[in-house]
Amino acid sequence: MSSNFGDLIRVTIFGESHGPAIGMVMDSPPAGYEISEELVLEQMKRRAPGQDATATARVESDTPEFLSGLLGGKTTGAPLACIIRNTNTHSGDYENIMHCPRPSHADYAAGVRYDGNNDIRGGGHFSGRLTAPLVAAGSIAKQILSKNGIFVVGHVLQIGKAKDTEFCSTSIYQDLIEKLSTEYFATISESAKKKMNSEIMAAKLDNADSIGGTVEIAVTGLPAGIGDPMFSGVENVISSAIYGVPAVKAVSFGAGFDFAEMRGSEANDQMFVDDSDEVKCLTNNCGGITGGITNSMPVIIKAALKPTPSIGKPQRTVDVIDGTNSMLEIKGRHDPCIVPRALPAIEAATALAVLNLLARNGKI
Amino acid sequence: MSSNFGDLIRVTIFGESHGPAIGMVMDSPPAGYEISEELVLEQMKRRAPGQDATATARVESDTPEFLSGLLGGKTTGAPLACIIRNTNTHSGDYENIMHCPRPSHADYAAGVRYDGNNDIRGGGHFSGRLTAPLVAAGSIAKQILSKNGIFVVGHVLQIGKAKDTEFCSTSIYQDLIEKLSTEYFATISESAKKKMNSEIMAAKLDNADSIGGTVEIAVTGLPAGIGDPMFSGVENVISSAIYGVPAVKAVSFGAGFDFAEMRGSEANDQMFVDDSDEVKCLTNNCGGITGGITNSMPVIIKAALKPTPSIGKPQRTVDVIDGTNSMLEIKGRHDPCIVPRALPAIEAATALAVLNLLARNGKI
Amino acid sequence: MSSNFGDLIRVTIFGESHGPAIGMVMDSPPAGYEISEELVLEQMKRRAPGQDATATARVESDTPEFLSGLLGGKTTGAPLACIIRNTNTHSGDYENIMHCPRPSHADYAAGVRYDGNNDIRGGGHFSGRLTAPLVAAGSIAKQILSKNGIFVVGHVLQIGKAKDTEFCSTSIYQDLIEKLSTEYFATISESAKKKMNSEIMAAKLDNADSIGGTVEIAVTGLPAGIGDPMFSGVENVISSAIYGVPAVKAVSFGAGFDFAEMRGSEANDQMFVDDSDEVKCLTNNCGGITGGITNSMPVIIKAALKPTPSIGKPQRTVDVIDGTNSMLEIKGRHDPCIVPRALPAIEAATALAVLNLLARNGKI
Amino acid sequence: MSSNFGDLIRVTIFGESHGPAIGMVMDSPPAGYEISEELVLEQMKRRAPGQDATATARVESDTPEFLSGLLGGKTTGAPLACIIRNTNTHSGDYENIMHCPRPSHADYAAGVRYDGNNDIRGGGHFSGRLTAPLVAAGSIAKQILSKNGIFVVGHVLQIGKAKDTEFCSTSIYQDLIEKLSTEYFATISESAKKKMNSEIMAAKLDNADSIGGTVEIAVTGLPAGIGDPMFSGVENVISSAIYGVPAVKAVSFGAGFDFAEMRGSEANDQMFVDDSDEVKCLTNNCGGITGGITNSMPVIIKAALKPTPSIGKPQRTVDVIDGTNSMLEIKGRHDPCIVPRALPAIEAATALAVLNLLARNGKI
Repeated sequence: MSSNFGDLIRVTIFGESHGPAIGMVMDSPPAGYEISEELVLEQMKRRAPGQDATATARVESDTPEFLSGLLGGKTTGAPLACIIRNTNTHSGDYENIMHCPRPSHADYAAGVRYDGNNDIRGGGHFSGRLTAPLVAAGSIAKQILSKNGIFVVGHVLQIGKAKDTEFCSTSIYQDLIEKLSTEYFATISESAKKKMNSEIMAAKLDNADSIGGTVEIAVTGLPAGIGDPMFSGVENVISSAIYGVPAVKAVSFGAGFDFAEMRGSEANDQMFVDDSDEVKCLTNNCGGITGGITNSMPVIIKAALKPTPSIGKPQRTVDVIDGTNSMLEIKGRHDPCIVPRALPAIEAATALAVLNLLARNGKI
Repeated sequence: MSSNFGDLIRVTIFGESHGPAIGMVMDSPPAGYEISEELVLEQMKRRAPGQDATATARVESDTPEFLSGLLGGKTTGAPLACIIRNTNTHSGDYENIMHCPRPSHADYAAGVRYDGNNDIRGGGHFSGRLTAPLVAAGSIAKQILSKNGIFVVGHVLQIGKAKDTEFCSTSIYQDLIEKLSTEYFATISESAKKKMNSEIMAAKLDNADSIGGTVEIAVTGLPAGIGDPMFSGVENVISSAIYGVPAVKAVSFGAGFDFAEMRGSEANDQMFVDDSDEVKCLTNNCGGITGGITNSMPVIIKAALKPTPSIGKPQRTVDVIDGTNSMLEIKGRHDPCIVPRALPAIEAATALAVLNLLARNGKI
Repeated sequence: MSSNFGDLIRVTIFGESHGPAIGMVMDSPPAGYEISEELVLEQMKRRAPGQDATATARVESDTPEFLSGLLGGKTTGAPLACIIRNTNTHSGDYENIMHCPRPSHADYAAGVRYDGNNDIRGGGHFSGRLTAPLVAAGSIAKQILSKNGIFVVGHVLQIGKAKDTEFCSTSIYQDLIEKLSTEYFATISESAKKKMNSEIMAAKLDNADSIGGTVEIAVTGLPAGIGDPMFSGVENVISSAIYGVPAVKAVSFGAGFDFAEMRGSEANDQMFVDDSDEVKCLTNNCGGITGGITNSMPVIIKAALKPTPSIGKPQRTVDVIDGTNSMLEIKGRHDPCIVPRALPAIEAATALAVLNLLARNGKI
Repeated sequence: MSSNFGDLIRVTIFGESHGPAIGMVMDSPPAGYEISEELVLEQMKRRAPGQDATATARVESDTPEFLSGLLGGKTTGAPLACIIRNTNTHSGDYENIMHCPRPSHADYAAGVRYDGNNDIRGGGHFSGRLTAPLVAAGSIAKQILSKNGIFVVGHVLQIGKAKDTEFCSTSIYQDLIEKLSTEYFATISESAKKKMNSEIMAAKLDNADSIGGTVEIAVTGLPAGIGDPMFSGVENVISSAIYGVPAVKAVSFGAGFDFAEMRGSEANDQMFVDDSDEVKCLTNNCGGITGGITNSMPVIIKAALKPTPSIGKPQRTVDVIDGTNSMLEIKGRHDPCIVPRALPAIEAATALAVLNLLARNGKI
């Protein structure tokens, strides 16, 4: 009752980490759009594990099988479904987790929610693995948007104390969009990425600790006038999509929390007519949205992710079956930092949100 | 198509700032709950203008008239509607705004969205005045929640450089809940409020400038196991409600953006069995939510609001009718800081979100 | 949680028969349409009681007050709300109904549903009076549709054994649309109406008995290609709207239940190219819909209504408080036949459904 | 944007007749219910083709593969997905249909809707084959309902002039439920089925003509008080589900269209207290629903299906590419009567509707 997003173009995500398959249904992309499966794979590769030392060593050879909604490489207007088989599953011993939920994981909350019937192997339906079909869906959304001149692009903004350049202070040119869109662990500045890698390795080497971070997303090419007031504004729709990505704990638009210390005279985005006779703003503190509606500037979003909760250090937990205090040490393969792999998932959620916003306004 | 929130208990907000009336319909609160109209008025008073020098001098004698859904002071299970008449409207000259949209206001975006048919007098449907019926709806939600032992409470956390104590580091006792829930411009620390007032007055005196801020909300008493995975989690639902309050540009849960610099060992909320044999956490960085589902700790939310865009200083804008650059000086009564008055609206949005989450899980 | 219809243009109906007011909110009609309040009143007059001997003698001077969403007579794109005051309420003695629910009324089912908290005075939220704001909303929808060349028109098809001519066998010319749209108790054939009146009077004179009937609705001017497969087809959306009108117990499209005895060779709507080079059908047994999608022919709908359950004859019921068998004799003013007054409500529900179907397909 | 049904327990159907696979996702059944895959197969067998001379000779060895949402044979609370591979596809020549849409098929309407991008092979997403995953989903719903004492059961009521006994005049005992639930072409009376078979064979032998029919469904064991007023009543929700089954053109409740000729004194369901001290009705003309809410009597539904539009006789159509009149003769394997195979699909749609109604009322 909850693993679906959107109204006019609704995406449903299904599957559990160690079940037969995961997948998604998109009901339905508009008809007549050419979809490249290669581009879908390119995006899925950006979230795949095992790409460098900063990520888990697991290998997932994730090739989605498209089951419906495409004919001759074009969308038919009917629901588009794809599945990804789970192959690399070690479901050995989860007895431990049934007794002792892992701190800051979904284990305890989900166990209460589903009376212990939920599949806990590999995190079940709460696993980060479920972002694979989300990225597949998002890639289809991105392909449709790009044919309308709209681009959703992101980069890792911060990990620990290491920070990348912000979009706000950068012109988002097409070649930057190209570069970021195809890269694993995309950053604007290469030196920032190096520092981020150092932060991650330092955490990993500290008894398999982990670290959090933020990403920044831009949506370019959106015309002014998209969105609706109050509860269906651009912020409402995009944030509710992005919070669907595991570990996201904060979403902001434009200057976000920095507004707290700003004066109106500094915060206001003053307007002017540009050389093409289009209305633009001198600044973009509103992140392209006023009154919930796009204002012709790029939509700028930031999201923060908590550190991977699976760490090597011993932690206090409870034995929920025995009702006693207990200790837990988590073994196995885990990402010391989920942020680089979560980036394409957050872009995907954003793209699906934007696609729905356009559909609601009859623009796609 | 957008001024409504919720699924099982859907609230629709209507009205324009200078039209005959504003109001809301709640379809439908559960039957059999006693609703105090006095408590509704108490909450509405917390958002009313003109209460001190930091707010606009306008007076709104806003008494909602309840039209349906109540019988003998109890909910009937049918839609509950109330209206508030607009009395204090000066619709003199809005010609100027039709030509020159105010920077960072909804004027320009809405004008494009509705092809110039939207009511721009006083901000029309985008006016902060529309939070009055939202607060009325929220008060009804709060009354129902409180009878289930659940409390939604908030305070102004930051204005400019002035900061209040955070909930995270405080036990949220019932007397604190009482105090904050009935106060205009609620803060935990009185000295923090004084500093905030200074920040506001400084902005106001600087050529009628304005200032932004943040609020913090807690939801106490929620049992573990409320919410759903992915797109109907507690974060998704609450954030999409809160972004319905004008000027909100950031929403976070628990440690929020601070996670970016945290290690897992520091961020994880280790668990223990408390004296009442209940499972609790040593910290609450997750803000009471893991995997989108409540974990028995209070839900902790922060939201940032941009400064009031109406300021006295001259600003660049465009004349959208003539297609030329222009300048704008905004006269009239405006809040130098909207944060204190927005607080009860954000609490209201949160209460409506929580009520729907409970209803979806069959708990109310 | 249920008195609202539509997704992109959602109408919420509120109020109880003997409460302060009833009303509706439409969130939101597209911006820029001129709305005539006079035409709204004209439609409301078609459902008003007391127009002839076949209807209840109650008088309702129902003038809706528009509260929002209109400026200078045009839609603003914001929610359009209107209320109608309840003036003619005799809430004397409903003690009896609390004990003894009226057979085939909502009394018993609603009492269980709401644990006895529902307002039973005059039927409360289940009263046929709630079709007044529905007709107001429908009139606005009709006005918007007509500006797009689409007309929703209906007539009473059958009451007892008296039958009107069917639309299927008639060309639906513009002057027939005009005539039917403005008439109380609209029929194509005047002699059929006379026979229907005789049926109604015969029932009324037989110890205040009542009688059922059917209506037929046509939607003309819809382009081919509107609607979606499976659960959002034209039939699904229109039927779920029409079942919102009290007393409706059957909804069919085209040949409807007559298909049971038809062969494919007789039922199939063979196609041809007409003089304007448009694709049309020789017959319209599918009622303008194939695969859930319009096919260029008029959409044809039939709906049946049960007899008014309030009758003068003594009936068996139960005393739900005492838990014993009991007898009931219903006094007071009641329509011996609700069908003529329900007709504009069913047209209204259809118009709202069509408006949403167009909006979902980005056509309005 | 339309091949999904339900809110709290949403089922999405995907696939095209000649694509790689069809399937469904149920998001999500309540956790902890044992699901028998054997019972799913039993229901799917009831809709499988090729079972006797009255159905198409095609063989579909349809075994659903469950991909998620089940663990150890029990629902986990996560989305339950299954797929069915398409194996028996002859996609030879559909050139003809691209030129000349088949009368009363979705071909023409869908071609306009999707600008010719829809997959027309075998009817694509509009194929009756899509009822296979619907029946799978419905079987899961039925299994969950039956554990709550609620049964959805149906029979073929009429084909041509041959009629079965109605439920209304029959006590719906548990052994009748058992019998009908497991039978292909279920009828109450065996002699009625023989007559129906004669009707079907007569149509088939008449130059491969086809014939329509009706089914009747009962839902037993529903407590009073389920459903909501106006647009979320039992009738609205069930009818919008059933219209999702291809070829359905009429849905009614209780006495349905027969109400047109009934007096209130005859139609009203008088009430009494039965031997178990429960409130029951002497008749069930309202079909178990008053005011949109269950009243403790079985819910009784009738639905009519049009004859299979694919017939051997030559028919007029248009060449939509050339824009000229044309003739069409349809070859190949087709059901002369779809009604027996559609019965389990209509039961499935009903079961999904009932499951959602219960979930909305917090009863499951």
